[in-house]
Amino acid sequence: MTSPNATIATLDASLVHRLPASSPTLFEAKKQKNLTFEAIAKKLGREEVAVAALFYGQAKASADDIKNLSELLDIPQDKLESQMAGWPDRGRTIDMPPKEPLIYRLFEIVQNYGYAYKAVLNEKFGDGIMSAISFSTKIEKETDDKGDWAVITLRGKW
Amino acid sequence: MTSPNATIATLDASLVHRLPASSPTLFEAKKQKNLTFEAIAKKLGREEVAVAALFYGQAKASADDIKNLSELLDIPQDKLESQMAGWPDRGRTIDMPPKEPLIYRLFEIVQNYGYAYKAVLNEKFGDGIMSAISFSTKIEKETDDKGDWAVITLRGKW
Amino acid sequence: MTSPNATIATLDASLVHRLPASSPTLFEAKKQKNLTFEAIAKKLGREEVAVAALFYGQAKASADDIKNLSELLDIPQDKLESQMAGWPDRGRTIDMPPKEPLIYRLFEIVQNYGYAYKAVLNEKFGDGIMSAISFSTKIEKETDDKGDWAVITLRGKW
Amino acid sequence: MTSPNATIATLDASLVHRLPASSPTLFEAKKQKNLTFEAIAKKLGREEVAVAALFYGQAKASADDIKNLSELLDIPQDKLESQMAGWPDRGRTIDMPPKEPLIYRLFEIVQNYGYAYKAVLNEKFGDGIMSAISFSTKIEKETDDKGDWAVITLRGKW
Amino acid sequence: MTSPNATIATLDASLVHRLPASSPTLFEAKKQKNLTFEAIAKKLGREEVAVAALFYGQAKASADDIKNLSELLDIPQDKLESQMAGWPDRGRTIDMPPKEPLIYRLFEIVQNYGYAYKAVLNEKFGDGIMSAISFSTKIEKETDDKGDWAVITLRGKW
Amino acid sequence: MTSPNATIATLDASLVHRLPASSPTLFEAKKQKNLTFEAIAKKLGREEVAVAALFYGQAKASADDIKNLSELLDIPQDKLESQMAGWPDRGRTIDMPPKEPLIYRLFEIVQNYGYAYKAVLNEKFGDGIMSAISFSTKIEKETDDKGDWAVITLRGKW
Amino acid sequence: MTSPNATIATLDASLVHRLPASSPTLFEAKKQKNLTFEAIAKKLGREEVAVAALFYGQAKASADDIKNLSELLDIPQDKLESQMAGWPDRGRTIDMPPKEPLIYRLFEIVQNYGYAYKAVLNEKFGDGIMSAISFSTKIEKETDDKGDWAVITLRGKW
Amino acid sequence: MTSPNATIATLDASLVHRLPASSPTLFEAKKQKNLTFEAIAKKLGREEVAVAALFYGQAKASADDIKNLSELLDIPQDKLESQMAGWPDRGRTIDMPPKEPLIYRLFEIVQNYGYAYKAVLNEKFGDGIMSAISFSTKIEKETDDKGDWAVITLRGKW
Amino acid sequence: MTSPNATIATLDASLVHRLPASSPTLFEAKKQKNLTFEAIAKKLGREEVAVAALFYGQAKASADDIKNLSELLDIPQDKLESQMAGWPDRGRTIDMPPKEPLIYRLFEIVQNYGYAYKAVLNEKFGDGIMSAISFSTKIEKETDDKGDWAVITLRGKW
Amino acid sequence: MTSPNATIATLDASLVHRLPASSPTLFEAKKQKNLTFEAIAKKLGREEVAVAALFYGQAKASADDIKNLSELLDIPQDKLESQMAGWPDRGRTIDMPPKEPLIYRLFEIVQNYGYAYKAVLNEKFGDGIMSAISFSTKIEKETDDKGDWAVITLRGKW
Repeated sequence: MTSPNATIATLDASLVHRLPASSPTLFEAKKQKNLTFEAIAKKLGREEVAVAALFYGQAKASADDIKNLSELLDIPQDKLESQMAGWPDRGRTIDMPPKEPLIYRLFEIVQNYGYAYKAVLNEKFGDGIMSAISFSTKIEKETDDKGDWAVITLRGKW
Repeated sequence: MTSPNATIATLDASLVHRLPASSPTLFEAKKQKNLTFEAIAKKLGREEVAVAALFYGQAKASADDIKNLSELLDIPQDKLESQMAGWPDRGRTIDMPPKEPLIYRLFEIVQNYGYAYKAVLNEKFGDGIMSAISFSTKIEKETDDKGDWAVITLRGKW
Repeated sequence: MTSPNATIATLDASLVHRLPASSPTLFEAKKQKNLTFEAIAKKLGREEVAVAALFYGQAKASADDIKNLSELLDIPQDKLESQMAGWPDRGRTIDMPPKEPLIYRLFEIVQNYGYAYKAVLNEKFGDGIMSAISFSTKIEKETDDKGDWAVITLRGKW
Repeated sequence: MTSPNATIATLDASLVHRLPASSPTLFEAKKQKNLTFEAIAKKLGREEVAVAALFYGQAKASADDIKNLSELLDIPQDKLESQMAGWPDRGRTIDMPPKEPLIYRLFEIVQNYGYAYKAVLNEKFGDGIMSAISFSTKIEKETDDKGDWAVITLRGKW
Repeated sequence: MTSPNATIATLDASLVHRLPASSPTLFEAKKQKNLTFEAIAKKLGREEVAVAALFYGQAKASADDIKNLSELLDIPQDKLESQMAGWPDRGRTIDMPPKEPLIYRLFEIVQNYGYAYKAVLNEKFGDGIMSAISFSTKIEKETDDKGDWAVITLRGKW
Repeated sequence: MTSPNATIATLDASLVHRLPASSPTLFEAKKQKNLTFEAIAKKLGREEVAVAALFYGQAKASADDIKNLSELLDIPQDKLESQMAGWPDRGRTIDMPPKEPLIYRLFEIVQNYGYAYKAVLNEKFGDGIMSAISFSTKIEKETDDKGDWAVITLRGKW
Repeated sequence: MTSPNATIATLDASLVHRLPASSPTLFEAKKQKNLTFEAIAKKLGREEVAVAALFYGQAKASADDIKNLSELLDIPQDKLESQMAGWPDRGRTIDMPPKEPLIYRLFEIVQNYGYAYKAVLNEKFGDGIMSAISFSTKIEKETDDKGDWAVITLRGKW
Repeated sequence: MTSPNATIATLDASLVHRLPASSPTLFEAKKQKNLTFEAIAKKLGREEVAVAALFYGQAKASADDIKNLSELLDIPQDKLESQMAGWPDRGRTIDMPPKEPLIYRLFEIVQNYGYAYKAVLNEKFGDGIMSAISFSTKIEKETDDKGDWAVITLRGKW
Repeated sequence: MTSPNATIATLDASLVHRLPASSPTLFEAKKQKNLTFEAIAKKLGREEVAVAALFYGQAKASADDIKNLSELLDIPQDKLESQMAGWPDRGRTIDMPPKEPLIYRLFEIVQNYGYAYKAVLNEKFGDGIMSAISFSTKIEKETDDKGDWAVITLRGKW
Repeated sequence: MTSPNATIATLDASLVHRLPASSPTLFEAKKQKNLTFEAIAKKLGREEVAVAALFYGQAKASADDIKNLSELLDIPQDKLESQMAGWPDRGRTIDMPPKEPLIYRLFEIVQNYGYAYKAVLNEKFGDGIMSAISFSTKIEKETDDKGDWAVITLRGKW
């Protein structure tokens, strides 16, 4: 049997100084409870990516999120409320271009297909942008005879 | 009635020096025929984004693609074959971070959600990456009472 | 009497390669007609900054804009329609940080007040962003006993 | 009822090392008192953005500002006087281009409209610059049937 | 006799803040035991480079790897399990271009031969990439009358 | 039958200004003759990658190379001698980090394994570097039941 | 006798694409007339540096400047008026940090003494800046027994 | 009466890690004694800017400087001697381009007038450079009916 | 016998746009005459490196240099005088860090030994710099039983 | 008599975090003993620059070096052996371009003379590079009636 700890995402110590105070609190508790983001997302009633974004300080937690996280992770609610009180200061966790190969692939897709996306979006929707704020995203796993496929969906208001 | 030319994507002159010789050939013919990528994609039997990527030199055209493009756009087939003979030299069309606001939003999603995507992908699939090569992508338009939504799907082999 | 040519904005030759084909067409005609953006804006019924943005390829011209520009500047309408047909490829005119002292001051305001703006906007509007797309901007001149004041207003949908 | 702490801006721990000693002092007290910048600005008789700039070390506090801040936030006046004694070392809080989406939108406006602003300002005011020092700025909230609008005004001496 | 400590690789203190918590743990034990990567690799049944990559946090340790490392290096297994639990956050150890002359030479090979590799790979394999994930690499030492030769082999799935 | 032109590497027009005069001469003739680097390498008695490097101006052609290239590609020998007379000005063909996904993978290997390579090389060879000048490299294709594998070998004098 | 051409500043061909159209016109005539900036400055009644700045497109010529330049350099006045009509697009002639050793020394002074200048200016003048617009600068030559000294004076409104 | 502390330059805590050990020692004592650089300069018999440069570690203190600083600031002489023993490691206090608006203006002058300075200096002095080492600089305050003017003089050996 | 053209340095076409007009003139004639820099240096009575620097526009030619170059290379003297009239605009030929492996090695020496050189120079000469202007440099070839050694000497006024 | 401490090179505190653990150990002892690199070099029988490079972690100490350093500087030998055990991680002490004026001059020489060095080296030695590894360097002081001259010699295997 593989080590259960090996199956969940934890926080790399060298990232901590780029994150709000809530991030080590949350990740430490997640590790103690040995919970996947899937399990936490179910409890919070949100998409897994959104929950992971909360952990990395990239999204604003609602009062309900904080209450649920407190219960699920056994963190005192007032501690979480204080640490998650601020408005997210997004985007500073990562240096671009990303060095992590898995994240780089997403960057590479923007680099290669950027103008193609723009051309098709402009033809379909006219001038404007897809919002990255009124926006949701999710990851699904599909399996066929070639193996596993990661399917990422981005859905943004035009 | 709005100008029909206004509805299709064309090639900005200031981009030409970053593109292979086939790009101005293809875009010029597209403009003359006043065709959307949707119309061209139907003819080629491919996704719109893939076709736009062909126009920007970001994908390798098959012999069938070349034949279809030649017929649809009235470009001599040998000219297209010669100009599209090479292997794509991808990624140089755009400087990163992208300055175009529409493309920047996609970049911003990677910047904000990069670690969240990685954490969820690792938990769902284990160590590895989502291929950006064995990969397909598409854009769909959804409309609800809040207005239009752009839905971008990325599907890559793990 | 000062030279009339000296009073209007023209296009610096060293910028042309960064702009769409319509930019030199429009600026050349503006210079021949010796028209300010104020005069052109009156004819088009738009803000001066929006008109200047059209000239620099940073905004999409409507069919009416093209018709009005054609009449006012004596440019054949089909030429303008063809040159302004594409979707704007925004943001590439300028390298950031801007070297031009006048534009640098605006950049400096973002650099110095960026977090202050964010803090006040978050407190007033909650989480989110001010759109730079559903957005208008204008410049006004005020004069008091200390001299002239430039007043720039940015108005964006939250 | 939402958590009151959630409604005010606080200081992200990962920013502290870029700020003068007064910044954590001020933000900590603001959080304890649960005060918005609007409330503090009323007490100081200054614009909200200017007050937020004081908190981020981007502006010089007057003796009156220090006295008022001391009273309102229950910080010993000599502590504030000592921490705010220096001349502001402006501009180092943020890396440009800004990664925070909300601040990036302001940067994007400069990137897209920079030359348009310059052209209109030169035509209206002649050669010169708009001062970013003899300068004031404010944020207002407007609401119409489309929703809320953020209105930012920049007013600088020519 | 040369100092035995001089013959093994250790961890430079100035690198520690870029590495996961497991790296100083592993390197410290390696130094105490005075073991080469060759010796450790034999115990783990893996290539030396792969083992060194584990030490630098660039690869995911299997449960067997952790058990073997624990035994060989006298590190409590639960400590290693906890420190090596996360998914590797690859690529951040080094700034590119690398300043270290030995690593720079590998970078230089990519810089000089990049297009040559691509041209030959495309002709041999068609469009696509060599995976850096389904990938193995090793270093061998060859000696002839001219001296020693380092032979690095990269083997990746197309 | 696939188009024969599609199977060989050609020169992207947007790269020409970064290459010596000999590069378009050689690639144009290669395209006319429809020769792979494998075929040319056989004639020259050199590794394919070395021949491709000659085409991109990254290596010095010997008098024999020039004579063989002239015969095989029907290029007047004095033209080749004149264009290939200079000492190679290496490394400027490509911007680093490489944007091309295939070349990026090689870069990524250096980024991820750089310190691992260094540690193992130092332990095996002592202090020093692997020469990138007294150096040869080759690409081989291996096929097993998982598919094709690209095997790149770097061999450099220590 | 030294070559007279050797004693005056001319325009390096590799700079032309960064300059407005007036720059090669003015420098070419200066070279034909073999005039120093000192001689031209006397005619225009301005400081030498200001005149050189006009030649490099870094300052706005008055109607008188244009008239004087036209007479002194035998350039048709309407040609100069047309080429110098625009508002200067300052700062793009040079990449920073400057590579030219002579200009680098000035950059180095800012780099080394920047905070020292700021501290003394703040103590002498309070919070604010020295204008680089309401600004004049001149170069003088002093000679003593140690040789020649360049004395540059910057004078800006606080 | 304004707070006396407000009138002197102090050291921003966020700069300390870029400075030698002597800088916080000196600035702390300056703050305790509430001395301007003008007062310290008088004691040392040097220009104010040179003294400020000593405080920021940008200049080598003579034995006399150390003795005078020790007396004036009540710092044990052996402490100062030890902390100021090294040769200055100049230029690392500041990132270029400078973000501080006041220092940026000096940078901007080099950016805008760089080539103009070079052209005039070359014509006046021939080929060579103005030394930034055999160099002195000072700041003076002039006042006329338009207000205050900062006059910075740079004097360097040719 | 090796091709004689192969033995001399020529000018890579892709560098021309970074060089003054004199550079292609001089290199073309050097190629026609098939002269090494050693031969030209003998004629001019200068060091080879200085002569090569003249060819790349990095040094000011004296009237004698121009006369000698004209005679030796059969270039009309007035053509050379006109093209070499300006003051050198140094440093822009190359992007730093240099990509060329041979030039990179020199850069690497500065990168690795920079502080070591500074420490020894300060101890030997006191505070100050080694001039790169009152400066000469030369290359010598030494041969011993290990092979050839390049010896570069830099000699600069303190 | 000048202060003896003033005459030797010490370690700037702000550099420590970029250096191996041995650097502060060595520099602290050097300061206590008040030894120049010249004195230490005599003891070690090596060039001064090589010794300084050892202190900055840019070179590998031999067992003899460590023994000699231990004796001369009164550092326990096992402490030095442990701290100097690793293979040097070269090149990270300094950011390029160097900001220190003295080191910048060496960088500037590479920037200005880079292609000239390459051209002469290629003509003298053929294709290849000068090794920066099989390499020695030294600094000498020459004095003539013009003053002192620094003479730096680089000697590398071709």
